Amino acid sequence: MNPVNLPEMTIPSFNDIQTAYIRIHKHIHRTPVLKAESVNALTGAVLYFKCENFQKAGAFKYRGAANAVLSLTEEEARHGVATHSSGNHAAALALAAQKKGIRCYVAMPRTAPAVKIEAVKGYGAVITFCEPTLESREEVLAGILKDTGATFIHPFNSFPVICGQGTAALEFLEDEPDLEMMLVPVGGGGILSGSVIAAKSIHPDITVYGCEPRNADDACRSFHTGQLQLSVNPRTLADGLLTSLSPLTFEIIRHRVDDIFTVSEESIVLAMLMIWQRMKIIVEPSSAVALAVVLENPELFRGKRTGIILTGGNADLMNLPFGQK
Amino acid sequence: MNPVNLPEMTIPSFNDIQTAYIRIHKHIHRTPVLKAESVNALTGAVLYFKCENFQKAGAFKYRGAANAVLSLTEEEARHGVATHSSGNHAAALALAAQKKGIRCYVAMPRTAPAVKIEAVKGYGAVITFCEPTLESREEVLAGILKDTGATFIHPFNSFPVICGQGTAALEFLEDEPDLEMMLVPVGGGGILSGSVIAAKSIHPDITVYGCEPRNADDACRSFHTGQLQLSVNPRTLADGLLTSLSPLTFEIIRHRVDDIFTVSEESIVLAMLMIWQRMKIIVEPSSAVALAVVLENPELFRGKRTGIILTGGNADLMNLPFGQK
Repeated sequence: MNPVNLPEMTIPSFNDIQTAYIRIHKHIHRTPVLKAESVNALTGAVLYFKCENFQKAGAFKYRGAANAVLSLTEEEARHGVATHSSGNHAAALALAAQKKGIRCYVAMPRTAPAVKIEAVKGYGAVITFCEPTLESREEVLAGILKDTGATFIHPFNSFPVICGQGTAALEFLEDEPDLEMMLVPVGGGGILSGSVIAAKSIHPDITVYGCEPRNADDACRSFHTGQLQLSVNPRTLADGLLTSLSPLTFEIIRHRVDDIFTVSEESIVLAMLMIWQRMKIIVEPSSAVALAVVLENPELFRGKRTGIILTGGNADLMNLPFGQK
Repeated sequence: MNPVNLPEMTIPSFNDIQTAYIRIHKHIHRTPVLKAESVNALTGAVLYFKCENFQKAGAFKYRGAANAVLSLTEEEARHGVATHSSGNHAAALALAAQKKGIRCYVAMPRTAPAVKIEAVKGYGAVITFCEPTLESREEVLAGILKDTGATFIHPFNSFPVICGQGTAALEFLEDEPDLEMMLVPVGGGGILSGSVIAAKSIHPDITVYGCEPRNADDACRSFHTGQLQLSVNPRTLADGLLTSLSPLTFEIIRHRVDDIFTVSEESIVLAMLMIWQRMKIIVEPSSAVALAVVLENPELFRGKRTGIILTGGNADLMNLPFGQK
């Protein structure tokens, strides 16, 4: 069976992530790992930043999308891929499909930001608009799948997607084998799941923390209660971290991640500004959540070689959380 | 005689730039050269970006400042360095002096942005405030020099500073030896002077253009009239390019640069947004002027391997030329 069609709760092994890496590595950017003396001086930690904001389509999501698309059988590829998403996964899947020369269908809420709609369109995907509710998304997506025979690629509750996301941590530890800690933002949990599998396989003693906005703390609550909790009316700048964990990502995260920290909106803005000002790179608010965890818990990271995955760079430059006069 | 004290009109040779590189290369960042498929697709050119926005203190100015500081005699070093500047040169000189453990004095207009004042203070320089006029700056600086015996390091009318700035083009052509064109912003002319000496020595056929805001077009007028023209009431977002050429930089530029192009403020904003959105890196408006030249003259650069020096990343994030609602 090909990896796109495994039973829903099949948990990827490190070997699956390595296989994904062999499959996708010529199709993705090997993103750089940056250090920043001045951020170290300000935080007391020894930080390494894996820059997925420089990944194709501007986020780590391209790794999972590319792995899913490249895992399709010829027959599946002929009918294209589909997803529902208002964010980076839709753009990543659209680009991966375009590069492979297959069709991509996206159910998108009509309230999605114009810039996100343009990105998905720009990569040649066919957009069907829906209402901004989960019900409407799923209904519209079901219609697309029925009409087109496309394969649904879920943004995170997906074996090949999680394997693809895990390749970022794989590269990270190749470049920086001595990391003691790794901090990974958590929304749906795709990148956290892939990262913890890869990191703990390479380096069993490494500590892996999930990083979440306090205003969208469902993963933290799920982790600490042992029950999958839903995100209820999340209101956070970190618009990539609004979704809840899925059964598959929760199953991976609950048993392997060391802890999940939550941070305030103020810390997210401070961390984002620090990255922009000191490192001269653009990250979206969701990416800043990991550095915000360091800012809120300096004693925990003092002197520690800590890896941070900067998940994406698709900030809305027309609507920034600072600089408005 | 040491390079800080050569007669004012001594023109650096390529050998002087190579000597500077040997002197400073362990003290500066070797900044990366980035490519951006999507910017190439939008412009039709084949662009390479030398990222001096990632240089220490956030701009190429650190190269010249480091070379000047490291060229001081022991006796000179004992009395420190001084300059008048409201921008990147002051911060760069302060940091270079701090790293060498010598004093730095800066005459700064009291109207300078708080963020620039903080940067210079943060690097341990002693600031004396003056009025925002050239007369007041020079008067205050003269007082500092008299009181302290410090060596004046001019931001661009300086042999060691120009030699230091030329090392960016040296690295650029080491990394990308096949460049056909090089685009360099021009304000006082330090980076353009150093770049044209280095680039044409390494690669005599390369075309080197200066890039200037149309609203601060003194270098273009000087170049085309053969007479050093002053900048009169320049009003441009590119706040690093407000100054006029100096006798030394004009002498270098007039005989070696192929042409100087000017661009509109609208093109500068468009180019800056394109770099931020597509490349996910932060550059200040002055850095965007070179890409703006490509946007305004697409036919000239179509298919050409064109190097752009991104001069700095010290954008004022609280006062951006876009995103204000």
